[in-house]
Formats: sequence, structure tokens, C-alpha cells
Amino acid sequence: MSEFETIPDPFSSKVRRGEVLDAECPSRDVLKHMTSRWGVLVLVVLIGGTHRFSELRRKIAGVSEKMLSQTLQGLEGDGLVHRLSYPVVPPCVEYTLTPLGQEAASKVEAMVDWIEQKLPEIMQFRRDNADTANQ
Amino acid sequence: MSEFETIPDPFSSKVRRGEVLDAECPSRDVLKHMTSRWGVLVLVVLIGGTHRFSELRRKIAGVSEKMLSQTLQGLEGDGLVHRLSYPVVPPCVEYTLTPLGQEAASKVEAMVDWIEQKLPEIMQFRRDNADTANQ
Repeated sequence: MSEFETIPDPFSSKVRRGEVLDAECPSRDVLKHMTSRWGVLVLVVLIGGTHRFSELRRKIAGVSEKMLSQTLQGLEGDGLVHRLSYPVVPPCVEYTLTPLGQEAASKVEAMVDWIEQKLPEIMQFRRDNADTANQ
Repeated sequence: MSEFETIPDPFSSKVRRGEVLDAECPSRDVLKHMTSRWGVLVLVVLIGGTHRFSELRRKIAGVSEKMLSQTLQGLEGDGLVHRLSYPVVPPCVEYTLTPLGQEAASKVEAMVDWIEQKLPEIMQFRRDNADTANQ
């Protein structure tokens, strides 16, 4: 592989493909935004369509206003989420997946779906493990 | 949905499926282990086969010994990674994906692969965005 393939320069247009195992690769930031505690859940919820900020907050149990806002900014900055602000009082802001974001969300959803489906098996493993440890 | 489906009890064997949007659902822990900064990369590297601790550390640029150890413990606790310790001096410890871990890793890999592939497009979006902001 040539140098620009293994060490992508964030300001170069020559990047052909990222390399997450490289600590300097900007793909690590995208990974961070998509897989942060709340990033995953925002993407999954937005698959269901456009949501207002308050709707997202209600659906994603446990997220604070600040963290949701920060999460959305990260996803917006990568072009995965589109923010539309209406000039009304009180303010109304809507968030929608971009076409790129829809692709991202489908990958994340496949992972989340797998976790939800396999949870009983994982819980069983934990119980068996705890039993063995107590013997 | 009945109660035990929406509010899984970590000590109950009745859990049929997790629900990551529920803050109390243990699937959130599994999600955390699989999508932590280093969890993702450990899973992706282990797809390539069994690795020693030192090999993992070398391949995953930027991870500290402490964080790698903690990440592996989380994945081991969920039954995704198997740890095999040989009684030799100096100690030799090997990590391998379990069959369940192979499934988990394939989901994570699909997401990482998408990010690496789409990075040029995301970088282009960031540049266009910065240009617009500077106008």
C-alpha cells in the first residue's frame, strides 16, 4: 500500500479509504460519533424518520439535553444527520438522516439488532460464569 | 408487549430479547463493550484469528495496556472472547473469538468497513462545510 492509503491526511483529498487501526486516521472520529453511547441510539431512532429534538430525547431513555445536542452535532458534522431549524417561537428543530446517514444507521441497526436478539444467550453465559465462580 | 419483554431483569431467565432504548436493559452493557473505543478494534482484529495480548496491543495503535485489558475483560464477561492463559514464564495469554463473538465481530466489521470505505465522502462533506462556513 502506498503512504497516503495507510496514513490519510485529513486535509488531503487523496484519501481513498480509511484505516481505523491507524491512530491518526480521521475514520476514528467517525467511528466515535457513530458508536458513542448515544450516537448509536440516535441513528437507530432516526431510521424511523424525521424527529424533533424533544422527540429524540423522549425516545432515548437516559440521555441529557447536553449529551443529545453534542451527539447530534458530531453526526451532523460528518454529514450523517441533517438539521433543519424553523424560525418560529418556541424554536422547532428537526433532525433527519441524510442518504449517507441512512447507510450508516443500517449498519449500526444490524449490530444493535444482533445484540437485542442474542441478549438471552449472553445473560445465560453471565449466569453460568457466576455459578462457576461461586463453586 | 408484556412487561418482561420491555423491562428485562438481568437476573431473570425470562428475557426474550433486549431493548437498547430502555436505559435499564442489560443490552446497553453489551453495546458498551462492543462499541467502546477499543472494543470495536479488538473484535475486528480478532476476526483474523487468535492473538496474544502483546500482538493485540501492537496492532491496535494507541491503546494502553490498562485499557486493552479492561476492554478484553468486558468482552470476555459477555462470552464474546475466550481467554487462554498458559502456565509458562513469562506468562502467555491468548485471546480468541467465541462463536458468539464471531457473530458480534462480523456486525462490527461491517460497520467499520463502511466507515473506511465512505471516509473520502465524509471528508469531502467536512471540507465543503468548512468552505461554506468561511464564506
